[in-house]
Amino acid sequence: MEGEPLSALCTPALVVDVDKVKRNAQRMIERCQKLGVQLRPHMKTHKTLECADIMTGESRRCIVVSTLAEACFYADHGFDDILYAYSVPFDKVERCAALSERLDLFQVLLDHPDALEQLKKRRLRDGRQWHVWLKLDCGNGRAGVLHSEPEALGLAQAIAETEGVQLTGVYAHCGNTYNCRGVEQIQTVAQETTSLTLQFMEKLKAVGITCKSSIGSTPSCSHPVKDMAQLSEVHPGNYAFYDVQQSVIGSCSLEDVAVRVLTRVIGHCPHRNQLLIDCGWSGISLDGAGKLPTGYAVIEGHPHLKLLSMTQEHGRVEPISGPLDYRKYPLGSLLTLIPYHSCATAMMHTVYHVHSDGRLLGRWTPTRGW
Amino acid sequence: MEGEPLSALCTPALVVDVDKVKRNAQRMIERCQKLGVQLRPHMKTHKTLECADIMTGESRRCIVVSTLAEACFYADHGFDDILYAYSVPFDKVERCAALSERLDLFQVLLDHPDALEQLKKRRLRDGRQWHVWLKLDCGNGRAGVLHSEPEALGLAQAIAETEGVQLTGVYAHCGNTYNCRGVEQIQTVAQETTSLTLQFMEKLKAVGITCKSSIGSTPSCSHPVKDMAQLSEVHPGNYAFYDVQQSVIGSCSLEDVAVRVLTRVIGHCPHRNQLLIDCGWSGISLDGAGKLPTGYAVIEGHPHLKLLSMTQEHGRVEPISGPLDYRKYPLGSLLTLIPYHSCATAMMHTVYHVHSDGRLLGRWTPTRGW
Repeated sequence: MEGEPLSALCTPALVVDVDKVKRNAQRMIERCQKLGVQLRPHMKTHKTLECADIMTGESRRCIVVSTLAEACFYADHGFDDILYAYSVPFDKVERCAALSERLDLFQVLLDHPDALEQLKKRRLRDGRQWHVWLKLDCGNGRAGVLHSEPEALGLAQAIAETEGVQLTGVYAHCGNTYNCRGVEQIQTVAQETTSLTLQFMEKLKAVGITCKSSIGSTPSCSHPVKDMAQLSEVHPGNYAFYDVQQSVIGSCSLEDVAVRVLTRVIGHCPHRNQLLIDCGWSGISLDGAGKLPTGYAVIEGHPHLKLLSMTQEHGRVEPISGPLDYRKYPLGSLLTLIPYHSCATAMMHTVYHVHSDGRLLGRWTPTRGW
Repeated sequence: MEGEPLSALCTPALVVDVDKVKRNAQRMIERCQKLGVQLRPHMKTHKTLECADIMTGESRRCIVVSTLAEACFYADHGFDDILYAYSVPFDKVERCAALSERLDLFQVLLDHPDALEQLKKRRLRDGRQWHVWLKLDCGNGRAGVLHSEPEALGLAQAIAETEGVQLTGVYAHCGNTYNCRGVEQIQTVAQETTSLTLQFMEKLKAVGITCKSSIGSTPSCSHPVKDMAQLSEVHPGNYAFYDVQQSVIGSCSLEDVAVRVLTRVIGHCPHRNQLLIDCGWSGISLDGAGKLPTGYAVIEGHPHLKLLSMTQEHGRVEPISGPLDYRKYPLGSLLTLIPYHSCATAMMHTVYHVHSDGRLLGRWTPTRGW
């Protein structure tokens, strides 16, 4: 298929504009260089080798992953300095130990003393240390020990003092930037997360502990605040692809979004004033339900159309208002969906079709599972 | 892992109780035998060879699929008499032709004259005929030509009269049974779809056309009405697994559901009265949002818990009311999710772990893509 136009693809198909990915990645690299912090890109959105190479500038070093399957996949392909940024799951301690003993630098994360006990029980061979990040909740409200709780400092100290375990850093994910609208709100959350993290680093210093610090999320790292320069690292991920959600938040423009789902018209339903397309929830994620006036996606070049509902292999499309002009949408014609959430939509596809300027270059194959 | 308990699995993991699958399949086979109609089971829920063998009684004949990838996968493994029950997509006509020329009986479906034109343009080799089902909309409101429109009869006649093309049957999917609650409502929709289909068959007969007829959906075929005996075939699919949705509709009891997603507690959040589990929307589908008092799933044995929200790899669980007793849910402990929609949740997994009475037997690997 190399060199062929996108229209040569069977649909539905996830397509990636490699030039946009490179531009998004390069901008993030430059932003972090300017800020003077280490970029540790997150792989969870795409889970491919090719995109990891672009995001790491081909160094294959210093990445963060959301699953142990990703960690193993990247380790198997020569990546190192991998942070598995997920509260260390007790069923996977042995697999984490194996990676710790095999790589130069495999890092885990925890937020509870019971997890530290698990690591203590599994001493690493050859005098190796567990490299542990403390997950801090600075207002995101998901995983992490609350920054304001005395237990947070206590747990950091316990990690630092445990034999065979090293406190590598403090990690805060500001996923609460996803509730923001516009740069000002994003920067308010970024500042808050940064300040709370830096305050925690001061508390650590006061008890004689120094280690790294990292915050992240695509919105905050797309519009960093000055104080983020005082952190050691940042760990955004979605920015390689971006998506409609990020454009609504204000992280990027719709123009920056590097992924699309191609779909074709497969049905005319004049009695319902609807079209059917060959993309259902097996081709584009249900994530984002009710959040866009255009439904589950933006239909590129057709702002008056709405992806109203989906079943496994069908999408129902209707005009936001007025009658549908079916002559514009003959059966078999292509439509292009810009996904609301690229992480969730990429996950529905076993291959991504990569193009430059609408000419196919090849395929990227993501890893899956846990 | 063979012979080990389910707790040996890393989580999240999709597990299939093979005894329940066999029982569900056997009941459907017997129900159809009793009714005297041919069962053509749909593969879209599981997309595996093993489950297809169970559903076809190992005949590897007479199945229906939702994607051409499924059709090819089953054809490659010795299945035949395959109906690709999807408005024939114009980008896949050549692939459909190849299957038609290769299998004893590959069947397609259409609901528009333009699709018939596509088939006409691609004559099959060796004097073979396109085997075409007409998709009829009997109130479901998705694909299909409306039963009440004069175009429906006209299209059936056009198919029957086109050289190189044969009208194999009339196909109606009563997906509108998914809005039902209880057997009575299911049977009302089943009766309506059956009656409208049979009336259409009469109209065809009046113009000298005879062919097969098929209706289907798991609710209607779990509680068939007598008149369905006058149809040639039925085509349910979800019943092999069933799910919470089917139990809410009244197709089955919760006891009949053959699939679960195993997950583990990975976080305690007493300040929010929540638990975190290691199953997000990458492990269980977002389909069913807002439909259950217990959130995105039923948590087996814990009817007072709700799967409130999910991100990619995290689920937030909280009590429906009152404070959470964390001593009952230590970090690392297993919880079992019964999915709202098994078709959508199975799609999130690259392997299914099959067990009998909680002892692992092996893995089933589904096909994916289009």
